Amino acid sequence: MKITVVGGGSWATALIKILSEKSVSIKWWLRDASSVEHIKTHRHNPEYLSSVTLDLKKVKPTTNLKQALKGTEWVIVAIPAAFLEDALGGLPKDVFRDKNIISGVKGMIPSQNILVTEWFESYFGVPSSRVGAIAGPCHAEEIALQKTSYLTIAANDAHLAKTFAEQLTCRYVRTTYIADLDGVEYAAVMKNIIALACGISHGLGSGDNFQAVMVSNAMLEIERLITAIAPLERQINASAYLGDLLVTSYSQFSRNRTFGKMIGKGYSVKTAQMELKMIAEGYYAAKCMHHINQKLQVKMPILDFVYNILYEKHNPKKAMEILKGELI
Amino acid sequence: MKITVVGGGSWATALIKILSEKSVSIKWWLRDASSVEHIKTHRHNPEYLSSVTLDLKKVKPTTNLKQALKGTEWVIVAIPAAFLEDALGGLPKDVFRDKNIISGVKGMIPSQNILVTEWFESYFGVPSSRVGAIAGPCHAEEIALQKTSYLTIAANDAHLAKTFAEQLTCRYVRTTYIADLDGVEYAAVMKNIIALACGISHGLGSGDNFQAVMVSNAMLEIERLITAIAPLERQINASAYLGDLLVTSYSQFSRNRTFGKMIGKGYSVKTAQMELKMIAEGYYAAKCMHHINQKLQVKMPILDFVYNILYEKHNPKKAMEILKGELI
Repeated sequence: MKITVVGGGSWATALIKILSEKSVSIKWWLRDASSVEHIKTHRHNPEYLSSVTLDLKKVKPTTNLKQALKGTEWVIVAIPAAFLEDALGGLPKDVFRDKNIISGVKGMIPSQNILVTEWFESYFGVPSSRVGAIAGPCHAEEIALQKTSYLTIAANDAHLAKTFAEQLTCRYVRTTYIADLDGVEYAAVMKNIIALACGISHGLGSGDNFQAVMVSNAMLEIERLITAIAPLERQINASAYLGDLLVTSYSQFSRNRTFGKMIGKGYSVKTAQMELKMIAEGYYAAKCMHHINQKLQVKMPILDFVYNILYEKHNPKKAMEILKGELI
Repeated sequence: MKITVVGGGSWATALIKILSEKSVSIKWWLRDASSVEHIKTHRHNPEYLSSVTLDLKKVKPTTNLKQALKGTEWVIVAIPAAFLEDALGGLPKDVFRDKNIISGVKGMIPSQNILVTEWFESYFGVPSSRVGAIAGPCHAEEIALQKTSYLTIAANDAHLAKTFAEQLTCRYVRTTYIADLDGVEYAAVMKNIIALACGISHGLGSGDNFQAVMVSNAMLEIERLITAIAPLERQINASAYLGDLLVTSYSQFSRNRTFGKMIGKGYSVKTAQMELKMIAEGYYAAKCMHHINQKLQVKMPILDFVYNILYEKHNPKKAMEILKGELI
């Protein structure tokens, strides 16, 4: 299988590690030339998951994106959604048309309020039968440690999903596949917003009891949303949906949670962003989902809570009192 | 409202604190005479949640069970299920017949494989319209700290559930009520088994990714079970079901998890019990549920995993390999 992985972060590195367990040829695009040189020399990504030893017989790092994409069959995208247009938008419009695109991105294209796979369809004309997404509860750090993890491949085309799921299966990764691309992608977008909400609540002094209430209600909210968008019979508590939310909401290291916690403790959005030197994906996602839900009008009190605090300058404590009245 | 609380542990103490927020008369039965004396003198339970100051104008502790029950309208039961027959079995058969019984117990009567409310119905002839249960994610320790918590009262009789839910509502406790007593009680029994399974898995070296898979699949398993027992339209992700599982499964202090972790690390069941000087509720629950499921034949791979390790001497590592093949 000829694969190109786009992105140099910890999730990209984890995917490279998993894919390298099989007989493959991987071209790996990283933006940073010094990282590429370091990988070629030392067989480790210097910035992320640096404990992972990379098999250079299978993995060819490069900063040349066009070359990385040339002749490849599968493109795995693993860069933050907010940077996707910047990184790939300048490519020729037909570059992805004959390739299968698998999104490892959990977020939306902020300027357009569309999912990552939708962007590949609309911007590059990739057929909807050729796009898919990786879901499931998966800290990249645990892939580095070869801890047992479950991934779900979602795609409109079952054969595509199954083929890629098999490619990801290895001793420490079990896979399954489902035909619910929209559901999985929207659930993944929502989980970053929920993690941010959990952070705000924690910053305001709530404990584990309320955290459990928040996550339970988040699942009700996510189910309402994706039922409105794509009304399918689905097992909403499969690990692709619930598991993904759990691993993020209960992680102490989530950027979204940390960002939210600062907001809950009284930092302004700007100060929190400056302190953290990064922007949590849930920040963008809240705005995208708010706009999408203005049409759908699904009852989403946690989304409203986060959006109102981040974009409408609502006081977190007062917003929390309103939210508490909406939860069950 | 005239209330009797039966039990002297941390959950009983938390319920006393919550109930004392309203105008009530509470008779509190504790087995231990020195605890009763301590409470009368110092207004604190010496053994559990000792930071909580008790209002002795409202709360009357006693070791005399018959006296505690005399003239009361509501009996709140908060002692481990395994000790219930021993503590209450010797009472006159008609003692509870004119009272409302609310179970705060999360377990089954081991000798009979029946729910706590079922035992009050069958053993004491309490009408099914007079029994209910408290559900929801609630560490007693967070009640002591007055952290916002959500409780759900389940009963066959909506008026009973609503009345008691209102009684529990206070500044830091929000309540709701549902007509799904069986569903809520079985889910509560299962969560202790799941927490034990999470402990075993952790003891075997699994990480957060797998924990999320375990909890997701546990919800699928619980939903299958309670749908088979009581096929209702229910919001399985409400905090009464999912929240309760989350707060237990993600707690580092759960006895069930600690017990399971020792099993996962290679201790025998007997050694783990001796080391911990107590028996985790999930240990009994696994046996009860196994027997119940022999009739129902619901697909419950996590229950089977726990039962086989605890009662059939299956090797935890091998049992885990089988379980991994069953999860999604």
